[in-house]
Amino acid sequence: MITASVCTIGDEILIGQIVDTNSSHIARALGETGVRVTAMTSIPDDGDRIVADLDAALRSSDVVVATGGLGPTKDDITKPALARLWGREGWYEHAGQKARVISILHSRGLDVLDVNLQQAMVPEGCDVIENKLGTAPVMVFRFDAARYGHPATLYSLPGVPYEALGAIPDLIADIRAHYPLSDIRHKTLMVYGLAESALAKKIEAWEDALPPQLHLAYLPNQLTGVRLRLSAYGMEEAAAESLIEAQIRALRPLLGSYLYSEQDDTLQATIGRLLRGTGKTLCAAESATGGMISHLITSVSGSSEYYKGSITSYAAEIKEKLLGVEDEVIKTKGIVSKEVASQMAEGARKLLGCTYAVATTGWADKTGDEFEPAGTVWVAVSGPEGTRAARFQYKNGRERNIERFAASALNELRLYLENERQLADKEVTKQKSLIC
Amino acid sequence: MITASVCTIGDEILIGQIVDTNSSHIARALGETGVRVTAMTSIPDDGDRIVADLDAALRSSDVVVATGGLGPTKDDITKPALARLWGREGWYEHAGQKARVISILHSRGLDVLDVNLQQAMVPEGCDVIENKLGTAPVMVFRFDAARYGHPATLYSLPGVPYEALGAIPDLIADIRAHYPLSDIRHKTLMVYGLAESALAKKIEAWEDALPPQLHLAYLPNQLTGVRLRLSAYGMEEAAAESLIEAQIRALRPLLGSYLYSEQDDTLQATIGRLLRGTGKTLCAAESATGGMISHLITSVSGSSEYYKGSITSYAAEIKEKLLGVEDEVIKTKGIVSKEVASQMAEGARKLLGCTYAVATTGWADKTGDEFEPAGTVWVAVSGPEGTRAARFQYKNGRERNIERFAASALNELRLYLENERQLADKEVTKQKSLIC
Repeated sequence: MITASVCTIGDEILIGQIVDTNSSHIARALGETGVRVTAMTSIPDDGDRIVADLDAALRSSDVVVATGGLGPTKDDITKPALARLWGREGWYEHAGQKARVISILHSRGLDVLDVNLQQAMVPEGCDVIENKLGTAPVMVFRFDAARYGHPATLYSLPGVPYEALGAIPDLIADIRAHYPLSDIRHKTLMVYGLAESALAKKIEAWEDALPPQLHLAYLPNQLTGVRLRLSAYGMEEAAAESLIEAQIRALRPLLGSYLYSEQDDTLQATIGRLLRGTGKTLCAAESATGGMISHLITSVSGSSEYYKGSITSYAAEIKEKLLGVEDEVIKTKGIVSKEVASQMAEGARKLLGCTYAVATTGWADKTGDEFEPAGTVWVAVSGPEGTRAARFQYKNGRERNIERFAASALNELRLYLENERQLADKEVTKQKSLIC
Repeated sequence: MITASVCTIGDEILIGQIVDTNSSHIARALGETGVRVTAMTSIPDDGDRIVADLDAALRSSDVVVATGGLGPTKDDITKPALARLWGREGWYEHAGQKARVISILHSRGLDVLDVNLQQAMVPEGCDVIENKLGTAPVMVFRFDAARYGHPATLYSLPGVPYEALGAIPDLIADIRAHYPLSDIRHKTLMVYGLAESALAKKIEAWEDALPPQLHLAYLPNQLTGVRLRLSAYGMEEAAAESLIEAQIRALRPLLGSYLYSEQDDTLQATIGRLLRGTGKTLCAAESATGGMISHLITSVSGSSEYYKGSITSYAAEIKEKLLGVEDEVIKTKGIVSKEVASQMAEGARKLLGCTYAVATTGWADKTGDEFEPAGTVWVAVSGPEGTRAARFQYKNGRERNIERFAASALNELRLYLENERQLADKEVTKQKSLIC
C-alpha cells in the first residue's frame, strides 16, 4: 500500500495559535484514495528543521504532503529550504501561476508588488499545480529511487485552509496519475439518533458477515450523527459496486428511519432536499437553541427558497406575546414541556405563515426546575397533519448541549417530513434510546 | 528554555476522522508557561510506533505530552506500550482514580465492569494525576538523566478533548513544580475592526520600542478579532506588572475603540458585561446572518438576564409583516440597504420591547443585486439615542461571510453600547478599512 506523511509548517501551529485542520482534510482524502497516512507532524518555521524533517519523512513514505510556510513574509524560509532539500540551484518563473497572481491581485483591487511576483518563482525541475484560489502555487518535487531507495514525491501546498482544501482534488489526481493505487470504492450512509456504540451493536451481525474486500468505518459527529462508510478495496468497478449495493440492501432495513441520507450529507441539507421544489415552507421557534437551528438551516445555500425565518423566544414574555404560548400552560406544565414546545411550533407556523414549524424549549446548562432537569429539551414539529413532540436529554456542557438540542430538532423535522405516521409510533421509545 | 513535544495517539487522527484540537490547547498552555514546543506529531494505534516515537521525542525534549489511545478498547495497545517504554514490569492500582471511576460510572447510572476498573491500574513507579472528568488517569513517567542524557518527563493524558482540556491546569502545575521555569506574565487585549496587518502597522512604532523583556503576539480569529498578547519573560512579578502596565498605557490610545476588552474575551461576552445588572434588554433581527448573532449571544451563560430574543426575517414578507419594513423602501433602496437594516432594528426593538436591537441584512453568497454586490452586509443598531447603521464588505465563501457579518454586527452593538457618539464619527471610514 502506498504510504504518506502529512507535515504542516508554521510556528503558529506549535505555539497553539491556530488549530491545524489541513492535516485532517488531507488525511481523509488520501485515505479515501487508498493511500495510508502513517505520520503527521508539525514543523516550526526553521529552515534546517524543514529540510531535516521532510527528508526523514521522504525516507519513510512514498508521498509527503507539506502545507504552509509559503506566505509572502515566510517565503524567505520555506521555499529556499525546499530548494535545498531538492538539491538543485536554479529557479524558474511559472507563467501560469504568474498570470494567476496578477489576476487575483487585480480582482482584489491591489497593486502587484515584486514580493507577490516572487510567488510564481519555483525551484528548477519541480512541477507546478496552479493554485486557483491564491498566489502561492502547489510545488511537486519528484525524487527518483536513487535518492531515498524508492520513488518519493513531495507536495508543497499553501497553508491557508481554503486554498489547501481547494488544492486537494488536484493533489489526489496527481497521486493517482503517478502511483499504482488499488481501486477503492466508497459508499456513505448518514445515520442520526443512535450513539456509535448502539449503532455498532445494532448492525453487529451484518458487520461480522461482511466479505473481506469490504471495510466499514464509523465517523461520528455531534451535528450530523454517524457517517457510516463502506469501502471496497482492490476490486473491478462494476464488481465493487454490485458487492457494496448488495450489502447496503441488507443494511437499510436494519437502520430503518435512523438512515437519513445515502450521500455525504447533513441533516439541514437533507431537509433542504425534502423541501426544495415542493413550494412548501419552513420556519422555527427557538428557545434553548437560541438561533442555532436557524443558523444551520440557513447555512445551506439556496435555503431562502423554502425557509422564511424564525422567532427566538428566549424570554417567556416573547413566547406568550408573539407565539401565543399560554401563561397557564407555562405555570402548570413548566416552560420546558411538551405543551410549551407544541404551542411554540403552532404559534410560529401561524405567525410566519409556513407549512411546517420546528420548535425547541430546554435547559442547556441551568439546574432545571421542578418539571425537568438540566440537559432536557422538548422538540415539537407542527405541520398540516398535526403537531408531534419528543423529549431528549443530554449530559454535556452548555455549548455541546445546545448543539445536540439543535441536531435533535433537525432530525425530528426530517422524520416528520419523511413520514408523519412513522414518527407517532416511535415517539415513546426514542425518548429512552437517546439518553446519553 | 525548557522544550516540549506534543504527541497525539490514535488512528482516528491519521485517517482524518477527527481534527486534533488537543495539541493546540496544550501547546498554547505550554507556551504561556514559558515552555517551548518544538515538535507535534500524531502516532497511529500501534505499540511499536508508540514506543519508538515517544522514545525519540523524550530524547530531544525535556517534556513530552501524549494524549489519546487510552479508551477502554484501545487500552490494550497504549498502556502496555507506555509500560514497555518505561521499562518496569509491575503494575499498581491507584486508589484515588479507582474511587473516581466508580463514582463517575454510578453518576451515569452505569454498572462498574472489570474493563472500567482496569483504568485505575498503572505501571509501577509512575505518578498519577487524577482525572476528575473521566475514567482514564493522567500518568506521569519521570525518567532520570541516565536514560536520555537529561531528566525527561512523559505525561499521558486522556484523548477525549474535554478531559484533556480539564487536565491541562494540573499538567502545567506539575511542570512548574519540577522544572526551573523563568517567570512569565501575560496581558491580553482584544481588538476588533482591524485586520492583523493593519493593526501591526498602526502600532508599529510602539512595538519597535518595546523593551527586550517584553514580547508581543498577534492571535487572529474571525469571530473575536485579534487577541494581542504581551508577555514579560524572566522578571520579578511586581516589576513585570509595572513594565507591562506602562506599555499598555501607551498602547490604549493607539487602539482607541478598536480595543474592546483587557481580558481573554469574546464580543458577545463583552456585550454581556456591558448589559448585565443594568436592567436594559437586547434583541436582534437577522436576515443574512440567519440566526448566528442570536446563537452567539445565547452561547454566553447568563444571557437570559438581558437577551429577550430575535426575529430571523429571512423572507422579505417577514421583514414587512413582523418588523414593519416598508415595501417601498425595499423597492427603492434595495433589500440590502441602510434603510432596511435600520427599519429591521427599529421594528424588532418595538415588537420585542427591548432597550436595544441589532439587525443585519446582506448577501452572503448570492450575486447581489443592482444596489449592493455579494459579500455586503448592512448592520443597524437601534436604542434610546437613535439608530446607527454601518456597511461592511467581505470576499469569502458563504459560511465565512456569515461569520464575519455576525461578528461585525456584534462589534457595532458593542460600540453603540460603549459610546454612541463615537460611532457616528467613524461610520464612513470604517467602511473602507474593513474591506478585506
